[in-house]
Amino acid sequence: MSKIAVIIDDYFEDSEYTEPVSVFRAKGHDIIHVGLEKGKTVKGKKEQTPVVIDESVDMVGADHFDALFIPGGYSPDQLRAHPGAVAFAREFMQKNKPVFSICHGPQLLISADVIQGRTLTGWTSIIQDIKNAGATFVDKSVVTDRNLVTSRNPNDLPDFIHAALEKLA
Amino acid sequence: MSKIAVIIDDYFEDSEYTEPVSVFRAKGHDIIHVGLEKGKTVKGKKEQTPVVIDESVDMVGADHFDALFIPGGYSPDQLRAHPGAVAFAREFMQKNKPVFSICHGPQLLISADVIQGRTLTGWTSIIQDIKNAGATFVDKSVVTDRNLVTSRNPNDLPDFIHAALEKLA
Repeated sequence: MSKIAVIIDDYFEDSEYTEPVSVFRAKGHDIIHVGLEKGKTVKGKKEQTPVVIDESVDMVGADHFDALFIPGGYSPDQLRAHPGAVAFAREFMQKNKPVFSICHGPQLLISADVIQGRTLTGWTSIIQDIKNAGATFVDKSVVTDRNLVTSRNPNDLPDFIHAALEKLA
Repeated sequence: MSKIAVIIDDYFEDSEYTEPVSVFRAKGHDIIHVGLEKGKTVKGKKEQTPVVIDESVDMVGADHFDALFIPGGYSPDQLRAHPGAVAFAREFMQKNKPVFSICHGPQLLISADVIQGRTLTGWTSIIQDIKNAGATFVDKSVVTDRNLVTSRNPNDLPDFIHAALEKLA
């Protein structure tokens, strides 16, 4: 079974966190919430789903985990303002560990400068940012490019979760 | 006196709207709130400041106004998902009309593909997006580049408002 780091902060899209995590746990995977401050409770944008941060992003690295999951909403925008969160995401990409990113998740990968030449999807508002970062944007429910699995929005969750599980198998 | 279009949607940064608008009005300028749906009330991110949309972005153009103001917060992210809002902002830039953008405001200009070769500032989280769009990022409280006035965050509001008023004089 895999140890999955969920990098998360306030204003995450509730369902984009709750649904994948529920399935990952049901399949026996471990979920560790990584954020800006250990012990802090962060909340979802619409339903204020509470999530307690297990580990500070500055105290862990990709070697402690098997995969990275980046839920969407405005959480990625909050995280990408912090160099430690950007470096944490970059390490997973550099080590070719599975990275699951939905909605605004690619914003964190853009700040990490790791999507040039890659193929991915994401939420409508960040299409231009994805292209400007040197990646190829594809308008599909899920895109798998080597270690990187991306989806656009909550409607894509079934396909997103299915593709992510294949990387953990 | 000038007619200023304020393009705005939910989750705007309250003070980045209220403070400039208060000064613009005190100086005698007209404020017209342009958004996705005429008559809708949009609200700020932290203080839920209510703003009623005066005009739908699809029914007006830059010719109706003397300047464009883009408050920050997550309002620009909401707006840039709509082609009409992107086209509206693009028109002000193409016609060299004054554009005032603070915090996440440049996100709308990035989607409009109008900042290549320009010099500007903005909120920390979007620095990489500004650079990837072909612009020069400067870490200053206010940057004026021809018609474009930009600032980083609420702490910059006094300098931002001062520079904006100079473009309206």
